[in-house]
Amino acid sequence: MKKVLPALAIVSLAAGAYAQAPALPNPAATDPVALGWMQGSPPAPDKIIRFEDGSFYRFPQLRWTFSHIRELRPTISVWHGNGTPSIMPQAAVDLDSLAFTDDKGAQATWADMLQRTYTDGVIVMHKGRVVYEKYFGAAAPQLQHSAFSVTKSFIGLMAAMLVEEGKLDPNALVSKYVPEVKESAYGDATVRQLMDMTVGVRYSENYADQKAEVWDYARAGGMAPVPASYNGPKNFYDFLGTLKKEGQHGEAFAYKTSNAEMLAWVVRRVAGKPVSELMSEKIWRRLGTENDAYFQVDSIGVESGGGGMSLTLRDMARFGEMMRLGGKYNGQQIVPKAVVEDIRKGGDQANFAKAAYPDVPGYGKGYSYRSMWWVSHNDHGVFDARGIHGQRVYIDPAAEIVIAKFSSHPVASNLGNIPLTDRAFAAVAAFLSK
Amino acid sequence: MKKVLPALAIVSLAAGAYAQAPALPNPAATDPVALGWMQGSPPAPDKIIRFEDGSFYRFPQLRWTFSHIRELRPTISVWHGNGTPSIMPQAAVDLDSLAFTDDKGAQATWADMLQRTYTDGVIVMHKGRVVYEKYFGAAAPQLQHSAFSVTKSFIGLMAAMLVEEGKLDPNALVSKYVPEVKESAYGDATVRQLMDMTVGVRYSENYADQKAEVWDYARAGGMAPVPASYNGPKNFYDFLGTLKKEGQHGEAFAYKTSNAEMLAWVVRRVAGKPVSELMSEKIWRRLGTENDAYFQVDSIGVESGGGGMSLTLRDMARFGEMMRLGGKYNGQQIVPKAVVEDIRKGGDQANFAKAAYPDVPGYGKGYSYRSMWWVSHNDHGVFDARGIHGQRVYIDPAAEIVIAKFSSHPVASNLGNIPLTDRAFAAVAAFLSK
Repeated sequence: MKKVLPALAIVSLAAGAYAQAPALPNPAATDPVALGWMQGSPPAPDKIIRFEDGSFYRFPQLRWTFSHIRELRPTISVWHGNGTPSIMPQAAVDLDSLAFTDDKGAQATWADMLQRTYTDGVIVMHKGRVVYEKYFGAAAPQLQHSAFSVTKSFIGLMAAMLVEEGKLDPNALVSKYVPEVKESAYGDATVRQLMDMTVGVRYSENYADQKAEVWDYARAGGMAPVPASYNGPKNFYDFLGTLKKEGQHGEAFAYKTSNAEMLAWVVRRVAGKPVSELMSEKIWRRLGTENDAYFQVDSIGVESGGGGMSLTLRDMARFGEMMRLGGKYNGQQIVPKAVVEDIRKGGDQANFAKAAYPDVPGYGKGYSYRSMWWVSHNDHGVFDARGIHGQRVYIDPAAEIVIAKFSSHPVASNLGNIPLTDRAFAAVAAFLSK
Repeated sequence: MKKVLPALAIVSLAAGAYAQAPALPNPAATDPVALGWMQGSPPAPDKIIRFEDGSFYRFPQLRWTFSHIRELRPTISVWHGNGTPSIMPQAAVDLDSLAFTDDKGAQATWADMLQRTYTDGVIVMHKGRVVYEKYFGAAAPQLQHSAFSVTKSFIGLMAAMLVEEGKLDPNALVSKYVPEVKESAYGDATVRQLMDMTVGVRYSENYADQKAEVWDYARAGGMAPVPASYNGPKNFYDFLGTLKKEGQHGEAFAYKTSNAEMLAWVVRRVAGKPVSELMSEKIWRRLGTENDAYFQVDSIGVESGGGGMSLTLRDMARFGEMMRLGGKYNGQQIVPKAVVEDIRKGGDQANFAKAAYPDVPGYGKGYSYRSMWWVSHNDHGVFDARGIHGQRVYIDPAAEIVIAKFSSHPVASNLGNIPLTDRAFAAVAAFLSK
């Protein structure tokens, strides 16, 4: 089994393990273009990245992979519509030399931070204008990049929209909508417990543990290769049905990808269509996006709502700006204002505190989690969507800032980058607010 | 082996076998939406279509598949750009009741023809205006549909553009650009022989023969499932290197998908980039397309230049209109006029005649093949791009007509539909020219 497990997890960090972080590779030496991954026709044998042999998720290969998921896996499109892309006003500001104090107490600059967090692309918007936009390595404006768990925030948002429309009852049991999971951990959880991840389910998210259920999940959904002898579940739904209850529902926040996958199933049942189609109708076409987004699909065509979405950076920035503006963008109310306000208000901080996140600014201490969004409860009212390896939609309402960031950090857990990233984000907010 | 071979081929017809065509299924009874393929969350077990078990290419399942290739296979995008789509002026004409005499001497209407040829989508343009546009079954304006060998005409066109730019020498040997195939059938063929398919290579295109090399090709490129015991070539390039010479080059037209795949390799070498990227730069972005096109890719990320492209119908119509207008569209010269004129002038008719195509109007008698386009040499100067199961870009310069058509006909060979389709196309031309 070892051979088919992605090797990336070697430097994954469970919450709290940050102090023991291993030495990281020199970012500049891992540039996927300089390294020649998948270049040439054909690429040299030792420069080929494949899904089946697990190389797609080794470091530094993953620096290429994250911008090329569809070339490795079946995907379904989130149509961008056929109109003119919405205008993103430009007002360039040179942030590269902006200085701040890093998590070790040393002086660093914005440009340093981008490199040290293995950034693939970043857009900073201030008061609706793009003040900074840059791409690195294998990334490009037209290439969709894996958003990992930023996906969850899209699913949570769509669920919250269905609640607002009166189509989804947050107090109903999950099994009301999906009777198939009645005997699983989800049988007696409510939709709201699912949306806020306070479900008691035996499921480990520890990427560094090869026996963690997150790998069973990935194999079932076709997101990790399986050996010839594999006889586990072959799609997300069959996997979800196997999960057992552990502890009580509604008592403590516990971040588990399976919850988002379960919520995506509920959303499909209620909407009567794939989440890719719902997202296109409700959000993507209306934002004036430039490009389709897409989801990885499992063997029966079901999108990964837990972490399978890829999208372009500009479109992700448009989405973030819409959330900053209370759901209004491109001349129309896209997400009901009440939905955005409910998310910004946050969830139950006491429940969240039980997850005992380390005291790293921006990582989770003092936070809550609402409809699959991270809510800081800090004095800027920062809330965000985040995915492993450094994917981020960061919204600072007080400073009128939105930051969209794609990365290919060797450490899966965002504990690997948030200590540096969020100090830089705060410095940008302070600088632009002057 | 039988199990992993797509079952569709059962009703495939080799050239000349049309007279023995089996009775065809009732088109209305094979509507993929009415049949419920891949609907529901999850779809019912007997409504699931997969690549691995070959169901994707059985009839009637393929009526769903052709609009959903990317959900089954890895693909690479042909970026549509980020501008405003070019305007397609509308001037609707009701063609449904337009009558013509079918190939059996019976009266038929345009609407009959669409149904009897298992049409998924059709656009008729006259003098630059869309006079008719319709979608059926699983197809939709925003869904890319498999174009099969229409792909070849895009590759041939890009090769001809590189020739016009002086970057590709049509008289040079293929092995000048791709030394890897020196020992294969392609070693001593010229680029022009490749472009016009007059290469002597042992390769059977007979879909009905399970031992035909077209299936080896598909397996190598990941376009057909392989058994666990498979130990043949695992990508297009390795497959191409195995092909043996048969007969002489330059003497007779012989339609072989391997030639287009080989030409795509030459184009990549000369352009120094993937054909998907070249196509985006040279054609797709400049046309003002609405959507990305995409190519299926093999296990090392190489696009199928032989038949792996999918695109939306409107964008295919734009492309056809550009070809009708001598390469000019969307306010600019996209393909050099000389390139389009060379294609319209056609290739060597005597060489083509040796392939002994049956005397079916529109199918090949009297035709030539130039830079991977079919040239009729008829009094309207009709030329076209075509793919199995009824994919078509049909250009009638005299009548100022372009017809883009997607279909999911149970018969792979276009002998299954051209006898009916092209009589209807001629009737439309006559009607609109009145």
